[in-house]
Amino acid sequence: MQLKEILKRVDHTLLSPTAVWADIQKTCDEGMFYGTASVCIPPSYVKQAAAYTAGRVPICTVIGFPNGYAATACKCFEAAQAASDGAAEIDMVVNLGWVREGADDAVLGEINAVKDACGGRLLKVIIETCLLTEEEKIRMCAAVSASQADFIKTSTGFSTGGATREDIILIRQHMKGGKQIKAAGGISGPADAAEMIRLGAHRIGTSRVIAALEQMQKEGVEYETISNTAY
Amino acid sequence: MQLKEILKRVDHTLLSPTAVWADIQKTCDEGMFYGTASVCIPPSYVKQAAAYTAGRVPICTVIGFPNGYAATACKCFEAAQAASDGAAEIDMVVNLGWVREGADDAVLGEINAVKDACGGRLLKVIIETCLLTEEEKIRMCAAVSASQADFIKTSTGFSTGGATREDIILIRQHMKGGKQIKAAGGISGPADAAEMIRLGAHRIGTSRVIAALEQMQKEGVEYETISNTAY
Repeated sequence: MQLKEILKRVDHTLLSPTAVWADIQKTCDEGMFYGTASVCIPPSYVKQAAAYTAGRVPICTVIGFPNGYAATACKCFEAAQAASDGAAEIDMVVNLGWVREGADDAVLGEINAVKDACGGRLLKVIIETCLLTEEEKIRMCAAVSASQADFIKTSTGFSTGGATREDIILIRQHMKGGKQIKAAGGISGPADAAEMIRLGAHRIGTSRVIAALEQMQKEGVEYETISNTAY
Repeated sequence: MQLKEILKRVDHTLLSPTAVWADIQKTCDEGMFYGTASVCIPPSYVKQAAAYTAGRVPICTVIGFPNGYAATACKCFEAAQAASDGAAEIDMVVNLGWVREGADDAVLGEINAVKDACGGRLLKVIIETCLLTEEEKIRMCAAVSASQADFIKTSTGFSTGGATREDIILIRQHMKGGKQIKAAGGISGPADAAEMIRLGAHRIGTSRVIAALEQMQKEGVEYETISNTAY
């Protein structure tokens, strides 16, 4: 897989709690330069980033993040606010207590309520695989498949683990209805990203792929070489 | 210090992302039984817990939690929702990117906006000390002192560290205007809690003090003995 094809699937991500505007700006610059699918940044910076990028890269943000236990009304308000601030894509976390209790209908209802609040923006549903049993992951594939959301997403990057190959294989096997898959958390470079894509991921959430490219360039590898390597 | 005096200052806390209602109910039961200052639980359970406890223990919840970068309008909505669901106390996280940038007026404005949205409920402001420099901690003491909030609080318990003795001493030295101090994160038993109180903490956020008491009882120590020990 060519680098350009990988980058087109990357949500270039900066969700550090202490990120300042200069960090967000750099992330936006990199997203625009490398042609990533989106830049994924904190809600409080969406308005400023949307004005700065002026449509040259879609803005993605996170809601009910990372613990997933905000009240439904609040997740909806947050989604509507993000959309009105200029977000094109919204990554929400499911209520993991409800998942554990088997309240799948409540989870599904919440996903659809948030999708309604998004006003047509793309909605990705984070199930936080590292905290779930296999049975819970399969139930969540069914819930997201039955919902109005666009993507299922593995991880927040703020819990005990990120996307695994096994999770992508399992999710691919159980998703229905043409939903897409986002692998996130722990993906460290283009080779990792390419592997996740080969396994079935349509998007890659990562803060590290572009840093890895820039490190290779610092080490004297030509960008053209990096670009033309098959990953 | 007697155990009863310690418990009166404890926000008995359960903020695990996968907590189910039975876990929340147990936390409420313990809070009521031991006479804690409050029980601190996720927003999505506030309404149910308020109905269950019926005023026998105040309900505390968290907003903009734990990363602090929700948009201000969303933090306000979340606070108003929590108050309307029955929360008596609200613990918000400041926008840590703004702190890093020196945008202290923006931080202060946000705190006051959330306090307005709380409708008279107690507001505690989490500054996440483990991510701040000493200079930033002192600036946050000034911001919270100048605000309409009721407490400054050290930590979320979801970052790289909890309350330290040094932080409590520093905060006590720099807070003005009669604000109170909540030490949270990493406090493992009554002796730890008592030490924080002696250093100047008015409240203790902990998920572990009551578990520690119950462990002592399991090990055959009489509750009366635990109660009458000077901590």
